[in-house]
Amino acid sequence: MSLTLRTRRSRVLAGGTLVAALGTAGVLGTVSANAESPRSRPAASAAPAADASGRDTTTTTHLTTAAAIRAAQAALDAAHRAHQNVSVAVVDRDGRTLVTLRGDGAGPQSYESAVKKAYTAVSWNAPTSALVKRLDSAPTLKDIPGTLFLAGGAPVTAKGAPVAAVGVAGAPSGDQDEMFAKAGVAALGR
Amino acid sequence: MSLTLRTRRSRVLAGGTLVAALGTAGVLGTVSANAESPRSRPAASAAPAADASGRDTTTTTHLTTAAAIRAAQAALDAAHRAHQNVSVAVVDRDGRTLVTLRGDGAGPQSYESAVKKAYTAVSWNAPTSALVKRLDSAPTLKDIPGTLFLAGGAPVTAKGAPVAAVGVAGAPSGDQDEMFAKAGVAALGR
Amino acid sequence: MSLTLRTRRSRVLAGGTLVAALGTAGVLGTVSANAESPRSRPAASAAPAADASGRDTTTTTHLTTAAAIRAAQAALDAAHRAHQNVSVAVVDRDGRTLVTLRGDGAGPQSYESAVKKAYTAVSWNAPTSALVKRLDSAPTLKDIPGTLFLAGGAPVTAKGAPVAAVGVAGAPSGDQDEMFAKAGVAALGR
Amino acid sequence: MSLTLRTRRSRVLAGGTLVAALGTAGVLGTVSANAESPRSRPAASAAPAADASGRDTTTTTHLTTAAAIRAAQAALDAAHRAHQNVSVAVVDRDGRTLVTLRGDGAGPQSYESAVKKAYTAVSWNAPTSALVKRLDSAPTLKDIPGTLFLAGGAPVTAKGAPVAAVGVAGAPSGDQDEMFAKAGVAALGR
Amino acid sequence: MSLTLRTRRSRVLAGGTLVAALGTAGVLGTVSANAESPRSRPAASAAPAADASGRDTTTTTHLTTAAAIRAAQAALDAAHRAHQNVSVAVVDRDGRTLVTLRGDGAGPQSYESAVKKAYTAVSWNAPTSALVKRLDSAPTLKDIPGTLFLAGGAPVTAKGAPVAAVGVAGAPSGDQDEMFAKAGVAALGR
Amino acid sequence: MSLTLRTRRSRVLAGGTLVAALGTAGVLGTVSANAESPRSRPAASAAPAADASGRDTTTTTHLTTAAAIRAAQAALDAAHRAHQNVSVAVVDRDGRTLVTLRGDGAGPQSYESAVKKAYTAVSWNAPTSALVKRLDSAPTLKDIPGTLFLAGGAPVTAKGAPVAAVGVAGAPSGDQDEMFAKAGVAALGR
Amino acid sequence: MSLTLRTRRSRVLAGGTLVAALGTAGVLGTVSANAESPRSRPAASAAPAADASGRDTTTTTHLTTAAAIRAAQAALDAAHRAHQNVSVAVVDRDGRTLVTLRGDGAGPQSYESAVKKAYTAVSWNAPTSALVKRLDSAPTLKDIPGTLFLAGGAPVTAKGAPVAAVGVAGAPSGDQDEMFAKAGVAALGR
Amino acid sequence: MSLTLRTRRSRVLAGGTLVAALGTAGVLGTVSANAESPRSRPAASAAPAADASGRDTTTTTHLTTAAAIRAAQAALDAAHRAHQNVSVAVVDRDGRTLVTLRGDGAGPQSYESAVKKAYTAVSWNAPTSALVKRLDSAPTLKDIPGTLFLAGGAPVTAKGAPVAAVGVAGAPSGDQDEMFAKAGVAALGR
Repeated sequence: MSLTLRTRRSRVLAGGTLVAALGTAGVLGTVSANAESPRSRPAASAAPAADASGRDTTTTTHLTTAAAIRAAQAALDAAHRAHQNVSVAVVDRDGRTLVTLRGDGAGPQSYESAVKKAYTAVSWNAPTSALVKRLDSAPTLKDIPGTLFLAGGAPVTAKGAPVAAVGVAGAPSGDQDEMFAKAGVAALGR
Repeated sequence: MSLTLRTRRSRVLAGGTLVAALGTAGVLGTVSANAESPRSRPAASAAPAADASGRDTTTTTHLTTAAAIRAAQAALDAAHRAHQNVSVAVVDRDGRTLVTLRGDGAGPQSYESAVKKAYTAVSWNAPTSALVKRLDSAPTLKDIPGTLFLAGGAPVTAKGAPVAAVGVAGAPSGDQDEMFAKAGVAALGR
Repeated sequence: MSLTLRTRRSRVLAGGTLVAALGTAGVLGTVSANAESPRSRPAASAAPAADASGRDTTTTTHLTTAAAIRAAQAALDAAHRAHQNVSVAVVDRDGRTLVTLRGDGAGPQSYESAVKKAYTAVSWNAPTSALVKRLDSAPTLKDIPGTLFLAGGAPVTAKGAPVAAVGVAGAPSGDQDEMFAKAGVAALGR
Repeated sequence: MSLTLRTRRSRVLAGGTLVAALGTAGVLGTVSANAESPRSRPAASAAPAADASGRDTTTTTHLTTAAAIRAAQAALDAAHRAHQNVSVAVVDRDGRTLVTLRGDGAGPQSYESAVKKAYTAVSWNAPTSALVKRLDSAPTLKDIPGTLFLAGGAPVTAKGAPVAAVGVAGAPSGDQDEMFAKAGVAALGR
Repeated sequence: MSLTLRTRRSRVLAGGTLVAALGTAGVLGTVSANAESPRSRPAASAAPAADASGRDTTTTTHLTTAAAIRAAQAALDAAHRAHQNVSVAVVDRDGRTLVTLRGDGAGPQSYESAVKKAYTAVSWNAPTSALVKRLDSAPTLKDIPGTLFLAGGAPVTAKGAPVAAVGVAGAPSGDQDEMFAKAGVAALGR
Repeated sequence: MSLTLRTRRSRVLAGGTLVAALGTAGVLGTVSANAESPRSRPAASAAPAADASGRDTTTTTHLTTAAAIRAAQAALDAAHRAHQNVSVAVVDRDGRTLVTLRGDGAGPQSYESAVKKAYTAVSWNAPTSALVKRLDSAPTLKDIPGTLFLAGGAPVTAKGAPVAAVGVAGAPSGDQDEMFAKAGVAALGR
Repeated sequence: MSLTLRTRRSRVLAGGTLVAALGTAGVLGTVSANAESPRSRPAASAAPAADASGRDTTTTTHLTTAAAIRAAQAALDAAHRAHQNVSVAVVDRDGRTLVTLRGDGAGPQSYESAVKKAYTAVSWNAPTSALVKRLDSAPTLKDIPGTLFLAGGAPVTAKGAPVAAVGVAGAPSGDQDEMFAKAGVAALGR
Repeated sequence: MSLTLRTRRSRVLAGGTLVAALGTAGVLGTVSANAESPRSRPAASAAPAADASGRDTTTTTHLTTAAAIRAAQAALDAAHRAHQNVSVAVVDRDGRTLVTLRGDGAGPQSYESAVKKAYTAVSWNAPTSALVKRLDSAPTLKDIPGTLFLAGGAPVTAKGAPVAAVGVAGAPSGDQDEMFAKAGVAALGR
């Protein structure tokens, strides 16, 4: 149900930028192989017969970890300014958790709630306060695994498509939680 | 432990290709909003104050669903040619399952095994037959959640970095499973 | 709650077709026994004292993997034609997942939703859009594990009995999801 | 890894036997539709456009519930004759549990152990006592979800292919457990 | 919330019947100790310093496995007579599953539903059809883990206290399921 | 694998003691029926047609809750006397947790470890220190769900049969844990 | 959403009281290091370069295990006086279970219900009977993992902030359960 | 198995600092009560009969969220300087996750591995590289739920007692992971 930002086929990617990326990989290549890192990278001269070609790959846009940390910290700071103890989570467009912060004194239920609110917001690219209202006409939406339909989740978009979401839980009201979540989102893109 | 293909910062992405993507999104915009799709996309004229800017996003390379289906089908076909009943899974670089195929007559244990073999292969960017040998020096590697250290998983790379993996289970030996998995990988990039 | 297609007792099966099946098994018999395939098949001359006789077995009708792939692909194609990003699942009459496809750009919540919609449709042999309405009189039906009462699941029948179901999730509305699921079903039986 | 008994394509099924099956279904058709049984069976005159045709279906051989109960009871009786308290499970070729019996006085660990032993036996079509030995060369086999590599599981075959398995747990030794499991298997096919 | 049948303190038990029980244990004593049965039973002459005395133990009444099998079979037979495919479960007063039967052709959702219906019936010592009505005044009762508030569960009592329950699922209506469950209960105590 | 104390068939129970139990039940009968306690006890004059008769029930011996608390407290006290921070659990003969105590300052891993040690001890009626040694000959015993083969679990017996077990975790060594567990067992039966 | 009692920064802690605590630790230091207790405590003379300084730590107030046991026992006693069979749980301010007591004859559903009621009460620092009413305006609150919105949970406070909660389940009504839970709370602070 | 820092009984806490804490609570008291924050704080004049008194509470030392973020960021920075993609987790002394960071390009297995490494390090107050060696003499230690015995976890201590731990996963070797984890720890206490 989510609009995503598929920018282009990676055939386009096969340009100089990628060579630079390979250059970085080359640096990594100096790392000695060991038990925990069994990267059997083919030698540069080997014919990578099974390498996925351009037409088989696509690129997607993700929030960086650094940005996710910044957003999460901004949400936590906003809550502290309001004298509230909350937990914060940032999930990416694929629903994977990027950052979690369990705030000092936040209730035990807040941690997982924050993750689920963010998951819900990114799944439908909308604040969870808006999504709660949708349950009036489709009440079983809330039975979808991983979701929590409570105010406190706010999507992060890039060019209008969802790339992540911030979830906050622990304040006396979900509306407050969502205000803090939006403060987290607002810390991005500046 | 996985080398990935971070191509460039998305600041570069903010070019014409993205406009095209937005064009597609515009088509989607004609879909009437309803309960299950509460996409509150900002109007084009709205100032997207909280939109994640270029420095906050990155792009990653993924196998397309179409390519994943092709690889999975090729692995299944290879097994059939060898008169083996197997299950096949393709997972992406983030460990998410893209495609699963439960083959006719494959044993019940094969389905989840295939997923875990693929997950293991993409995590370390190596065939699981090679990873099994690493357990000699680091036996607790196999306690990492989601992994299965049995031959039958083969990574898919793009420019040497892992973008996906194919896992196969159900043949009399893991080596056969892996042969089929590699047949799946070989169907890519042509 | 599901009507099934128990065709006949397998006493009937003990005919020539089975001999042919055994012939196929004979081909498999050339595979060398090894650690992962400890098939201790009795020698042909051994008296299979514990072999389940005809009166103890029954046969059931299942969708083939090939057909399940075709149905899933057809559902995905229908979604693409409508410019929607969805995930698709096909489950068999026993609720086991046969095929899953995570579509490019489909929301994270779509994958498991598709599986559960299909599971629900095959359990009651009805489209999930119809099943949602049943919750009016029996609201706790939705508490049955594995189910999701949202439009988007469509049963596959053989002679009126359920043999599988297709589930789709990720479109703006469940009705669209179900239209794609039905397109998947329509690709069968031609 | 399991050899299965795919008898024939169901194209063959489209004969008189199926009509008989439909006759049985017709009896069921007199059941009034209600909330918990939303079987929307098409009228006999309706063109079932989405009905899975013969080439899309296959048949598999399963142990009947009645036979599974008989096998489980026989295993329990054998244990009682040896003054042992055990639990018993019968799983079908797809790993689904058909019957479980928690014996009077059986240890708490016996119930789930019995299920897993049976699951393991049917997955590789071999007694689990034999499978334990395979761990010498492939120790990570035991990491496959759902399995337990302990003596006490015995496969049920039909024409050499696995159709089910009996698992027993709770006796002082796994060898005793397996003796009882085999007594259960021996009760079939007479 | 369950009334139980605590008959007496086991001080009373320390009579001749227990000696007989020990006699049976003596038979078991001939079993050779081995790895899977590390029963370190104290020698008869040893002073069992840590043995729980009478005032520390109590006795509870349980359905025998044999009776549970009989009840489950009777429920399944009743369903067959009504041409319905169902699954059946019997749980004891502690909520532990004693017997499960997956009926031929029963829907995939029926197996776990039967277990949960039985669990619910024994927890409150009432048919689940009656318990459903209680949700009107206490709707969150259904959020208690392990429960399913759908008709089809019937308690088994001994002297008015619950000792077990039979759960049935898979018929077109829960009322039918419960009729079969009660047929199972009726097979007891004759 | 556990020897249990099946004392007698409850036909014997149908004596005066049971009438006393019913008397107690009568007291409970005065509780007004309400939503959370839908006990539909048949009136005394009703013919309890489905009541489980004597031949269908058996009695088992259990540790009382009061005794379990005493044992757990004694184990905790012993640890405190040795200046150790531990968690303690008591499970009954059926593996159900009766009492858990998370000690002040006990490590996070101690709580679940204590439960699993107790579960293991009661399953085989032996101290877990002895069970660890059995893994030499049967290493996969430790794969049985719910078990933990680490010293620190001690069984509670009544007349030589297991009725419960005490588990302790958190001390610097498992041997110390088990010493405390045995101190808990020693508090019983005096 | 929970108000907590963060008393002071631990910079204050770096005084004499802590030295006393270290004295206690010194006693523990006589315990011989072994495999299960790999405490690599730095020698007193070592410079603990990575030791968390005062500004990085905070202190929180917790119920002692001894107090939790007393509260749980008091709740159980109150239930016994009312001739009710219940289970009791005490959780701390972080939602961790401190004590559980499964009462003699308590229904199987009572154990986990007691834990969840306590978890819910401590999360919002209110009796669950009050929290149930909040569902009228925010019905999805009950979808937060770990919670159960049924009367029977009562918070324990220290200076008005929650430090723990007592949960009771098993009585005919939640109001009775909560009365017992409050009796448990009342046993504290005397 | 973990030495903890129980500083003092909270009787000491009942001083002026707590009054300050109440002052903060008073600020919170101005928040209007609503559905999600049903804090029924007793009025200041009410006699808090059930308030936990000093002898019933204790205080524990925890890492602040701010410090945990700093440590996690420092670990991530160290990895970046070494051109490694990793995930980082910080857990507190009770095993609860305080902060998680999924690094750009880190393998999918790294996230949960980081959490488990930190959990293991805080449980035994030692680097996981040291704990791995302990498996030689106590191999089943690694079966304790929540643990992962792989290098990469480093404990955070306050006055020698564990208060938290940092876990890192994703570098080619566990030794590298642990070097980064220790860099995280080193960022504290300055």
